[in-house]
Amino acid sequence: MGMNNGHMHQTDVVIVGAGPVGLFAVFECGMVRLRCHVVDVLEDVGGQCTALYPEKPIYDIPGFPRVEAAELIVRLKAQAAPFQPVYHLGQQVQSLEPATGGFWQLTTSKGTVIQARAVIVAAGVGAFGPNRPPLDGIEAFEGKSVFYYVTQRESFRGKRVVIAGGGDTAVDWALSLAEVAARVSVVHRRDRFRAAPESESRLKALVAAGKIDLVVPYQLQSLDGVDGRLMAVNVATLDGVEKKIPADILLPFFGLSMSLGPIAEWGLALERNQISIDPATAATNRPGLFAVGDVVTYPGKLKLILTGFAEAAVAARSAYGLIHPEQPLHFEYSTTSGVPAA
Amino acid sequence: MGMNNGHMHQTDVVIVGAGPVGLFAVFECGMVRLRCHVVDVLEDVGGQCTALYPEKPIYDIPGFPRVEAAELIVRLKAQAAPFQPVYHLGQQVQSLEPATGGFWQLTTSKGTVIQARAVIVAAGVGAFGPNRPPLDGIEAFEGKSVFYYVTQRESFRGKRVVIAGGGDTAVDWALSLAEVAARVSVVHRRDRFRAAPESESRLKALVAAGKIDLVVPYQLQSLDGVDGRLMAVNVATLDGVEKKIPADILLPFFGLSMSLGPIAEWGLALERNQISIDPATAATNRPGLFAVGDVVTYPGKLKLILTGFAEAAVAARSAYGLIHPEQPLHFEYSTTSGVPAA
Repeated sequence: MGMNNGHMHQTDVVIVGAGPVGLFAVFECGMVRLRCHVVDVLEDVGGQCTALYPEKPIYDIPGFPRVEAAELIVRLKAQAAPFQPVYHLGQQVQSLEPATGGFWQLTTSKGTVIQARAVIVAAGVGAFGPNRPPLDGIEAFEGKSVFYYVTQRESFRGKRVVIAGGGDTAVDWALSLAEVAARVSVVHRRDRFRAAPESESRLKALVAAGKIDLVVPYQLQSLDGVDGRLMAVNVATLDGVEKKIPADILLPFFGLSMSLGPIAEWGLALERNQISIDPATAATNRPGLFAVGDVVTYPGKLKLILTGFAEAAVAARSAYGLIHPEQPLHFEYSTTSGVPAA
Repeated sequence: MGMNNGHMHQTDVVIVGAGPVGLFAVFECGMVRLRCHVVDVLEDVGGQCTALYPEKPIYDIPGFPRVEAAELIVRLKAQAAPFQPVYHLGQQVQSLEPATGGFWQLTTSKGTVIQARAVIVAAGVGAFGPNRPPLDGIEAFEGKSVFYYVTQRESFRGKRVVIAGGGDTAVDWALSLAEVAARVSVVHRRDRFRAAPESESRLKALVAAGKIDLVVPYQLQSLDGVDGRLMAVNVATLDGVEKKIPADILLPFFGLSMSLGPIAEWGLALERNQISIDPATAATNRPGLFAVGDVVTYPGKLKLILTGFAEAAVAARSAYGLIHPEQPLHFEYSTTSGVPAA
């Protein structure tokens, strides 16, 4: 099989997913002189950071007391750039099959064919979409006054915002939007939140200060409004006590539904829809296939971007060992090796 | 036992070592609302980054295409600062003993006593010093024309520099000093280097371009000079072939000798002078004692600063679980939790 109208590529490593961990995997592979191609279903690199919360501040990346998600992606892309990765964006991975010569052959939804000695799956939560609350007629409001992501918080300045949910996303946006919105109400079915203790403390301080209304224990019941313009969110307790919250905007943050998509058909050992790896090597059960980031699980796994970064360093070294078994890597210590001039 | 002239402290976690990983452990503990005290034998925070190579560029911290070691430390200290860690610098940890109430009691060389529910050892290579080459009279040159660390590369501008060694440090400084020195010679006992493949390629390119002299396979034999002022470095092959390299400066980079010091007496399971941990929890064999960073070992351990950062996130959560067994941590995903206003 030869070149197929420029769509057939051969490389050392193909990385599935161009989120922060996939981008850093390009860098780590580059440091051991492995060339990479990167495939992502989205049109831009950055994964959720770019698509879902570009303006969201992130606080737990080492060395960054605070960095916005989009800025982190810009920096990770720049860090990877000297190694000249080839990006194949806007296309979903489809089949993955063994090819001759110890290669894997990956085909995308656009017909791109990439042969690589190793595959690193950095697919995050996979193909993701928001969990929609089951409210009659909500579709008419979506994109007008009901949003599942915040891409520009300024657009909510002066608005009456209802946030529904009890996780990190709900709490963090409540804290952030309290600075610009006319009114922020948080609807949650119970009094406890699944958020970082520090964030929850800040939320309760803002509630005590009258800056945020806590509407607990309530659940969403229905929406009032016309032509996609929201006027009120109706909520109710399990006992049937009802309440009407005048509102311009509803932000339901009930998490993402994830789907591994075609990756689920690749014969990888899965555990609750996540890929099982050996954390010592980032190896899956299939030789030559590695996985890193939020898509993986192992004992003690933390779903932190940082943890994915560290896994990418492991995966790159494992891929190197697979591709160059005759040239063991001698260097072991961090951090001071140069990159090629741009 | 009560307060002892202000030298007796009680806290949630005591962190042993204020290098980059120790500093980030303060941040990660803060994110789960654990208060920290930090002990380090050095007078400043930053460990080797501050003491040995403040100006050295680091390339493999995610999000930083390049950052100088000292700058990384400034940023990590700032990231930890909102959680108000208490630093006890310029003092070595001494004894560690169980105290009442589930506390560990740590005593330092200055008599500071700290009681904490958990201990996180982030001691790097421990108390470290350079490996000195066995050359007659080398002591007279040390600090004048023989240096084991580079703290200001500008001080070598226009000088004839001999670098001895074949690891990352030797190669990286050869690359860096080639830009400012009159002459850089690299003496190594064999033709292969224990450096990142990318760095070794750059070295060989500079050798080919005549910018660096590669003196292989040679070893250091003796020094010529008077009153600490170096005039030449004499080298020889194993066969006795001798060569004289005119030089102003010798930089022997033969690694650091490490010693765990009193930590070796704490009953921790060790493997080749490193602390064995369970990577799923960062737990040592002693309950309440955790360890992270270059001081630890487990299958697949990489000695990267990044890897230590990820271990710090694990250790903080384990310490939280130990201290608050009744309040399981519900949040799991990264990165968007706020920190208290400074």
